Amino acid sequence: MSSEFGKILKVSVFGQSHGTAIGVNIDGLPAGEEVDLEELQRFLDRRRPGKNPLSTARNEGDVPEILSGLLDGRTCGAPLCAVIRNSDQHSRDYDDLADKPRPGHADYTAWVKWKGCADMRGGGHFSGRLTAPLCIAGGIAKQILARRGVYVGAHLRSVGNILDMPFPEQPTAELFASIAAKPFPVLEDKNGELMQHTIQRAKQELDSVGGVIECAAIGLPAGLGDPMFDGVENRLAAALFGIPAVKGVEFGEGFTAACLHGSQNNDPFAVENGRIVAETNHAGGILGGITTGMPILLRAAIKPTASIAREQRTVSLSRMEDAQLQIHGRHDPCIAHRAVPVVEAVTATVILDLMLEGNHGTF
Amino acid sequence: MSSEFGKILKVSVFGQSHGTAIGVNIDGLPAGEEVDLEELQRFLDRRRPGKNPLSTARNEGDVPEILSGLLDGRTCGAPLCAVIRNSDQHSRDYDDLADKPRPGHADYTAWVKWKGCADMRGGGHFSGRLTAPLCIAGGIAKQILARRGVYVGAHLRSVGNILDMPFPEQPTAELFASIAAKPFPVLEDKNGELMQHTIQRAKQELDSVGGVIECAAIGLPAGLGDPMFDGVENRLAAALFGIPAVKGVEFGEGFTAACLHGSQNNDPFAVENGRIVAETNHAGGILGGITTGMPILLRAAIKPTASIAREQRTVSLSRMEDAQLQIHGRHDPCIAHRAVPVVEAVTATVILDLMLEGNHGTF
Amino acid sequence: MSSEFGKILKVSVFGQSHGTAIGVNIDGLPAGEEVDLEELQRFLDRRRPGKNPLSTARNEGDVPEILSGLLDGRTCGAPLCAVIRNSDQHSRDYDDLADKPRPGHADYTAWVKWKGCADMRGGGHFSGRLTAPLCIAGGIAKQILARRGVYVGAHLRSVGNILDMPFPEQPTAELFASIAAKPFPVLEDKNGELMQHTIQRAKQELDSVGGVIECAAIGLPAGLGDPMFDGVENRLAAALFGIPAVKGVEFGEGFTAACLHGSQNNDPFAVENGRIVAETNHAGGILGGITTGMPILLRAAIKPTASIAREQRTVSLSRMEDAQLQIHGRHDPCIAHRAVPVVEAVTATVILDLMLEGNHGTF
Amino acid sequence: MSSEFGKILKVSVFGQSHGTAIGVNIDGLPAGEEVDLEELQRFLDRRRPGKNPLSTARNEGDVPEILSGLLDGRTCGAPLCAVIRNSDQHSRDYDDLADKPRPGHADYTAWVKWKGCADMRGGGHFSGRLTAPLCIAGGIAKQILARRGVYVGAHLRSVGNILDMPFPEQPTAELFASIAAKPFPVLEDKNGELMQHTIQRAKQELDSVGGVIECAAIGLPAGLGDPMFDGVENRLAAALFGIPAVKGVEFGEGFTAACLHGSQNNDPFAVENGRIVAETNHAGGILGGITTGMPILLRAAIKPTASIAREQRTVSLSRMEDAQLQIHGRHDPCIAHRAVPVVEAVTATVILDLMLEGNHGTF
Repeated sequence: MSSEFGKILKVSVFGQSHGTAIGVNIDGLPAGEEVDLEELQRFLDRRRPGKNPLSTARNEGDVPEILSGLLDGRTCGAPLCAVIRNSDQHSRDYDDLADKPRPGHADYTAWVKWKGCADMRGGGHFSGRLTAPLCIAGGIAKQILARRGVYVGAHLRSVGNILDMPFPEQPTAELFASIAAKPFPVLEDKNGELMQHTIQRAKQELDSVGGVIECAAIGLPAGLGDPMFDGVENRLAAALFGIPAVKGVEFGEGFTAACLHGSQNNDPFAVENGRIVAETNHAGGILGGITTGMPILLRAAIKPTASIAREQRTVSLSRMEDAQLQIHGRHDPCIAHRAVPVVEAVTATVILDLMLEGNHGTF
Repeated sequence: MSSEFGKILKVSVFGQSHGTAIGVNIDGLPAGEEVDLEELQRFLDRRRPGKNPLSTARNEGDVPEILSGLLDGRTCGAPLCAVIRNSDQHSRDYDDLADKPRPGHADYTAWVKWKGCADMRGGGHFSGRLTAPLCIAGGIAKQILARRGVYVGAHLRSVGNILDMPFPEQPTAELFASIAAKPFPVLEDKNGELMQHTIQRAKQELDSVGGVIECAAIGLPAGLGDPMFDGVENRLAAALFGIPAVKGVEFGEGFTAACLHGSQNNDPFAVENGRIVAETNHAGGILGGITTGMPILLRAAIKPTASIAREQRTVSLSRMEDAQLQIHGRHDPCIAHRAVPVVEAVTATVILDLMLEGNHGTF
Repeated sequence: MSSEFGKILKVSVFGQSHGTAIGVNIDGLPAGEEVDLEELQRFLDRRRPGKNPLSTARNEGDVPEILSGLLDGRTCGAPLCAVIRNSDQHSRDYDDLADKPRPGHADYTAWVKWKGCADMRGGGHFSGRLTAPLCIAGGIAKQILARRGVYVGAHLRSVGNILDMPFPEQPTAELFASIAAKPFPVLEDKNGELMQHTIQRAKQELDSVGGVIECAAIGLPAGLGDPMFDGVENRLAAALFGIPAVKGVEFGEGFTAACLHGSQNNDPFAVENGRIVAETNHAGGILGGITTGMPILLRAAIKPTASIAREQRTVSLSRMEDAQLQIHGRHDPCIAHRAVPVVEAVTATVILDLMLEGNHGTF
Repeated sequence: MSSEFGKILKVSVFGQSHGTAIGVNIDGLPAGEEVDLEELQRFLDRRRPGKNPLSTARNEGDVPEILSGLLDGRTCGAPLCAVIRNSDQHSRDYDDLADKPRPGHADYTAWVKWKGCADMRGGGHFSGRLTAPLCIAGGIAKQILARRGVYVGAHLRSVGNILDMPFPEQPTAELFASIAAKPFPVLEDKNGELMQHTIQRAKQELDSVGGVIECAAIGLPAGLGDPMFDGVENRLAAALFGIPAVKGVEFGEGFTAACLHGSQNNDPFAVENGRIVAETNHAGGILGGITTGMPILLRAAIKPTASIAREQRTVSLSRMEDAQLQIHGRHDPCIAHRAVPVVEAVTATVILDLMLEGNHGTF
């Protein structure tokens, strides 16, 4: 297995939902970078549950302890390891689940892979809780990037069938900040209200609902990335599919491009203030795996929460027979809004990795 | 840069469209596997241009020479390197392009990355021609997989707004073979005719059109893959985005899952003939990054061909000013149908890699 | 940077000597493996300082806390992260050193690499203290290997010019256990006494001394490893050079082979009890990067401790002028004997990685 | 398996001694670098057999064809693939060997790993002939490095018990060039004559002899490399053990350091012309895995050629019984002198990789 991604900057995530602690080891951070722990905490709080009635009641706290990698508040070149203790575990809520894999969860595949030895309490290592360590890495990456004029932001593009407007072609750091400050991460708050109604209704129906997250990054130079298998899209997709519940990733027009004509989808080049720019950004800032200098634009599809309160059909692993399952405990009827900072975090981490690698195209 | 993918089975692609040769080095093939070169050639022919009036007139031939890795028709454990000589190059067709990057192509990003030293004749290393070596690797992988009862197939799910029906929930090797034998790779030929009309119309309008490819793999055991960043989705996506023009990848319901309720998207488990199966396959055969034993199902979005005959706005790199571009030469008005075996090839290669790695979950 | 090694089993080390904690994240351990924490502690104690007058007075304790990866005393498939808190830090002892790089240490290279931002208190991330986390990984690996009949053992082959006898051609698990139980890890205790005298004398002379560690592994099947760059020697050497102070690694006859004739160095094959064996083991159990089934035999050269009490010439980084340096604090006059379990640990970890990967040669 | 090394610059070797061709794919070369093919050929000729009576009679030619990666004599960013056709194969010479593994060769381990399917004619993929592709990569790397003032050179430090003098503490590009121009690569020609006598005598005795190669690199900046497992020593050793017959690698004083006192082995720092230098170079230019700016100095032990003309004891694989083996055909009684440019090539390639990666320590 490998709960790690990155090339120059390697991020390794560890922990199980109901184990002693979760955490992250970040190897390859440049030295001398200030880490503002309060700002980091504010970023982590964006994915916290319990902020509004749409999220699980579990009060995680999620205050990381930095075990290494900092000296007087600055990175020192050594790997930065941060841990979050698990304090609020109701493992009993999950007792029934050990024998009955939850549809849509990794319970069954983990049971097969680890021959019944996996710690699946609360989803174990597959839990959405493991996205908190990703946000530690991403929150630090965002601080380092911002000092170089590179900003990453995200919003909920849809929940169920309710859409938010897309990012403008040239999003700004201010726009990203304004979304980050909102209790519900959308561009148009009235869209957010409709989304929240959709989520509430799903909850009342003992059901759940999915969504799409749109993420953008601005301020990158042209020329980052590589052709074929080590391109910006490959590396972002490989990391983003590591976020639990992500089932699709697209860049620029993405799947919509398949419906367009070349004359619609091509981005004409133009010279503007002595710089080459693209007049449109259907490519999402990436051509041939390499950045164009335009904003990177991507979307990740988040499936509906697999844990729903309705009774579901499953099997008993011990008796190898069909069974009914009733999931108790606290579960978000939608995780897409909480996943917004996670997509931001993973995107920022990959972008920092790309920038650290730099452009080895010439020497 | 890294024109390579894979973990146990490493596939490295080399060559430029108008250089001496293109090819692939495949490191990690198991020994003792027969390679049927005629069957391989039939597979390669599926992506060849010139089969019908929809494709470019260039007659590539594309008969690979195997330089290493075979002994008496069987793999011998050593890396298998295969090359295809480039014979039919009309480099002059591209002379104008050196100074004027084609919108939607990597011409500009390659120029930035390699400071004007890139070989961009015919797209250079970014050319769709580089998918021929991928098909050599994939064609060999398909032969090895088939001997283990694992089959990979693909079809055009859409071209522009014309849809083919989706794969059935349990596709068969026979279905895959029947699509592979068709001149146009769809499930329902009448959909294929409509698609071909769409492509023809785009061509007449000096334009191009995109499409979506759906790919499935059957016969895999449950338990392959890993959580988080080394999962089946991560590895497939990282490889698939290496195919030129792919702008989106999704698994199972993919982006549609974002519109579904959990009760619709979850796949109930059931015991069938003493085996645990999922009654539906919205997950596309993957939960938590690990195979469920159900078919793997994925879709890749192919953008419309960037090279269109219409005049387009671009820039002159030497004069740093706006310019008009007229692309001459032969270009497919759609590459999605030719990319079908490529998606199949890359998927098969990643799956063979996963199967070679096996399940290290227990020891 | 990358303080990580391994392919299927990835071991990431973090921490600085005088930071909050040091630790290790082990990704890829097979599930269901019992971890005997008392046995692990006994292994960790073998590298502890303070066991005898030859080692530093710092009482490290070194009791790891397992944060993840265990469920009811068994591995659960998720990464195992273990930390050791740093409690006994006398950072002031090192205050003078920030400006004056110690000859033979990484102080200067770290200062260049991290532009003065490195945490070099006590050697920082380069400290020999970072070998404690390696021993956690190796100690767990040794338990897993022992259940498969694979054993790893090591002894001091030399200190200064004092030699211990070499391992016999077929070392046994009992021999390894007997060395591990000794306060000073040699085959012949009288050699150990001479070595300890050598170390004591170096200490009295305000100096230090180096040594060679010999390590063997028994019980491995033939056929592990790969040709050229992913062979057993490559992977072991890459990991062993990660142990601070290792300046040479050799396998089988190693550098001595350069003085031998082929007729002396070749190991004749023979059939013994229906198995193919080598009659001698000059190859150290590895031919062409692949295990022969004979014991793996390697040696690592440990340079003399760089921190010596004598006054040394160095520079003042702040004033860019020559300077004199007097190192205070506690320093081992020899670290080779404490490095014996570390070499054992790293070797065991790499071997477990190789065994988990298995033999993909055929399928 | 993985016949590949490198991080930013990846070098993949393919081919079998008696297959169609051998070659190398080099991914990650910077663009715009001139490749002087005549100079490359001169470098390749240094490892050619047939130059003097000490080497095998096979006339390999070894003129590579560059298939990709060059445009008008300069690298273009795309992978550079070069092949050398195998023309002079006397496969019959090896017919007897298929059943009787040669002691000291990979015949047996390859037979185990690939279950009898390996192509072992002439050593197959394990043949010393596979070092020709390594020299293509290294020869190109040397040209690129020389343009940056970085030079790599090597000589035979010993053959059997005959020693050449060591490199001076500050070797020069001129010294490297003068050795490269010699028919026998030593510093003192009279030592070379003694070595050649030793080799001749071994040949007359139907035997072979080993040697030690010393390699140095000058002109590197301080600060390259990383702590622990991604350091300069780790990466060089991992690559060097990929050269067939290398059984030991050491840096600076290496194994000799184990016999020294700290006061002898530490390199005092001093300020010289406004730069920090080390007064001596026992560390071989590397401290804590990171370059000091002093010359890199390493030695590789080459075992005696395994193929000797004397009758040897082995087994018959088909009959599983003891057997006698008489190796016919042409074999070098010593390969150490031919391996000198190979060690140089591998070292240069790793150093170029390190330089391309650059120093990510700060950002």
